Amino acid sequence: MSTLHDFIAEHREIFASAHPQSRRLAEAGSAWRGGVPMHWMRDWATPFPIYVASAHDATLIDADGVAYDDFCLGDTPSMFGHARPELAAAVARQAGEGVSFMLPTARSNAVGELLRRRFGMAQWQVATTASDANRAVIRWARAITGRDQILIFDGCYHGMVDDCFVALKDGKPVNKAGLIGQVVDQTRTTRVIPFNDMAALEDALKTGDVAAVLAEPVMTNCGMIAPSPGYHARLRELTQHHGTLLIMDETHTLSSGPAGYCGVHGLSPDMFVVGKAIAGGIPAAVWGVTAEVAARMDAAQARIGPGQSGIGTTLSGNALVMAAIETMLTEVMTDAAYAHMLDGAARLVDGLRAVIADKALPWSVAHVGARAELIFAPEAPQNAADMRAVLDHDMLEAFHLYLINQGVLIAPFHNMMLISPRTGFDAIDRLVAAVAQFSEDLPK
Amino acid sequence: MSTLHDFIAEHREIFASAHPQSRRLAEAGSAWRGGVPMHWMRDWATPFPIYVASAHDATLIDADGVAYDDFCLGDTPSMFGHARPELAAAVARQAGEGVSFMLPTARSNAVGELLRRRFGMAQWQVATTASDANRAVIRWARAITGRDQILIFDGCYHGMVDDCFVALKDGKPVNKAGLIGQVVDQTRTTRVIPFNDMAALEDALKTGDVAAVLAEPVMTNCGMIAPSPGYHARLRELTQHHGTLLIMDETHTLSSGPAGYCGVHGLSPDMFVVGKAIAGGIPAAVWGVTAEVAARMDAAQARIGPGQSGIGTTLSGNALVMAAIETMLTEVMTDAAYAHMLDGAARLVDGLRAVIADKALPWSVAHVGARAELIFAPEAPQNAADMRAVLDHDMLEAFHLYLINQGVLIAPFHNMMLISPRTGFDAIDRLVAAVAQFSEDLPK
Repeated sequence: MSTLHDFIAEHREIFASAHPQSRRLAEAGSAWRGGVPMHWMRDWATPFPIYVASAHDATLIDADGVAYDDFCLGDTPSMFGHARPELAAAVARQAGEGVSFMLPTARSNAVGELLRRRFGMAQWQVATTASDANRAVIRWARAITGRDQILIFDGCYHGMVDDCFVALKDGKPVNKAGLIGQVVDQTRTTRVIPFNDMAALEDALKTGDVAAVLAEPVMTNCGMIAPSPGYHARLRELTQHHGTLLIMDETHTLSSGPAGYCGVHGLSPDMFVVGKAIAGGIPAAVWGVTAEVAARMDAAQARIGPGQSGIGTTLSGNALVMAAIETMLTEVMTDAAYAHMLDGAARLVDGLRAVIADKALPWSVAHVGARAELIFAPEAPQNAADMRAVLDHDMLEAFHLYLINQGVLIAPFHNMMLISPRTGFDAIDRLVAAVAQFSEDLPK
Repeated sequence: MSTLHDFIAEHREIFASAHPQSRRLAEAGSAWRGGVPMHWMRDWATPFPIYVASAHDATLIDADGVAYDDFCLGDTPSMFGHARPELAAAVARQAGEGVSFMLPTARSNAVGELLRRRFGMAQWQVATTASDANRAVIRWARAITGRDQILIFDGCYHGMVDDCFVALKDGKPVNKAGLIGQVVDQTRTTRVIPFNDMAALEDALKTGDVAAVLAEPVMTNCGMIAPSPGYHARLRELTQHHGTLLIMDETHTLSSGPAGYCGVHGLSPDMFVVGKAIAGGIPAAVWGVTAEVAARMDAAQARIGPGQSGIGTTLSGNALVMAAIETMLTEVMTDAAYAHMLDGAARLVDGLRAVIADKALPWSVAHVGARAELIFAPEAPQNAADMRAVLDHDMLEAFHLYLINQGVLIAPFHNMMLISPRTGFDAIDRLVAAVAQFSEDLPK
């Protein structure tokens, strides 16, 4: 009888024999550390990376000519589909008129108004990455409150922000090992609590020294974890009561609706961050603040004096980024696009749940907006510790390899599946069928 | 008799009356904090920002139809000229085939080999900004040496890297105020010394706890400061002797020659960073390490275990970035391009020095590669403290406004002038003439 390890080995072989070109390219990549330009590109279950030839909408073609239904979509930046002609046209036009000036462009104001109208915050800034945007809002939160501490949720991900590389281990805060070479003890100024734990939230805030809570409205990194009923209302109530700012990072939950999860659910953060997909994968992020926070920032700046060179980001590509965001907000991230994404996600979730029910599998599905996550546990965990307890790395590896060999890409790390406005329902049905077949083929 | 303040006021008026459209746009920008998408865009001498309509090569046209000879070039990202058709074509092509995949592309390896051949480092990674690249090399330097301290030079700029926001004030290290909301005392793990001070360098390294020196080969941020004779040889010798890694950040000195300042002068750092212009202003940076450092990184990673999620950067735009860097290295950053840039810079420097000599002005010119800096002091300072002592903010404001009103842009902050491969000698001559006229028109 074959084991899960045999199954994985067999699927690694299947992948390898179908990808001679990707293998050749991987072997020839010695000028790159680990063979790839960015280390994240190795974080897949395949024995060597898939090398991409091109991608359009929700289909990716690799160097071996293999086509994939792409539910990874670059792990979010390409959430609205690859090579969208609207974006390609805007990028080509702007590249023909200059990409980077250290000056605003004639279209800047229109983009600011689009952001304000869509997401409701009074004042905006543009950054190069969501990491940069999160660094900026954390700094400002500390500056305007005069408090040192920030509060995050165990298992969160807010980019490469040192302050957020703290996790709970056996209930105690620890610096994450992924922050190689870190010499600052982040646990001194970052408090970390389990998501969905109202008592822990009350305890963490009541000391009155927390500048800000930095949260995703739904946790999406340590598997997907939805807020429990009433959690967001309580979070807002407690932060307001204790004078703590509430920052929502919508980089991943932007798929929830045209104004993100906060828009769909009427949440009112003080500061708002969204990255990656807002510029269609052109490196950019935006952050916004309420009028009240803006006034407090003005006051802090007046106190501190001029200069904020430590806040912000590179000016590279500023004109290109304006053109990209404008096109995304006006032509790509439309109500119709969201309607398709949400319908598709509902179809996927229904399909996966039907497979689970039909076959009585001990699995469940988490879902937010256009994102769904298949969890190999009968109940969706409520926090990162519970999620870690049910995470089965061999099962994940087997599942990812199996899907790739069926021509389906989902995000690596866990089982995140993302529906773009260009994802066909036929592709969704193929994914559901592949999951059903996986459950059959898996060694018992 | 008019004063310098009258002169500045008069030139602000001249600017304002010539820019009704930019004024209108500045007044309508209330959705942006401070009226602009990125706060850096306000850091000019003008009473409100110039709004850009388009730019080609080294000419920028603003919303009022005013044309400028652009010696700022986006403050470096557009160093090789705006809207270069080679880059625009590559960007348009890749945007039509997808910008962001979380996977390498079929062209990745060629780009890695181009970087290796040009800059000589054995292994490379791509980041989104030079800040991210510097964060990565600092982390790795600490990880492989097991040491906490890094050493920087007073007045340096290496992006938005917290570790580098330390300066000397009255000879004592202090955290810079520009790092608003910082709650970590960076002086505990960052040592800062004056540039060109060999005794200070010896003292700072001899304790044996410095992981790395992070340096620009020529300081370019606190005004431009060249290394004194023998300084780089001694820096290399001392870092090697004390087991300290030497990191060169060539983001600004890339204009020195096809392989940067290190290439021209035969310097051999352990780690190498270059940002901005390497992708023609598409947000990207690259960092490389020697084979020896790569082996030590492997050993450190084996010790620490898998995962390096705290190092690296966003994956956004990874395919676009590959296409951009490839085009820059093969079609734009050519030997012929550098020959023109260096000839143009020599013409500019000669012209400025002739003006200074002819008129017996108490000024001097610093020069590295395609960058020149006019310093309002008779001798070029040797370190940041001396530079700060001669910096006259009113003179800078007067000079910048005057040039802008003559249709010439130079980088704000100080007097940096950058020659692109597309900068005409006529534009250089106009700049020199404007400087001569400025010296005449300046209130005595």
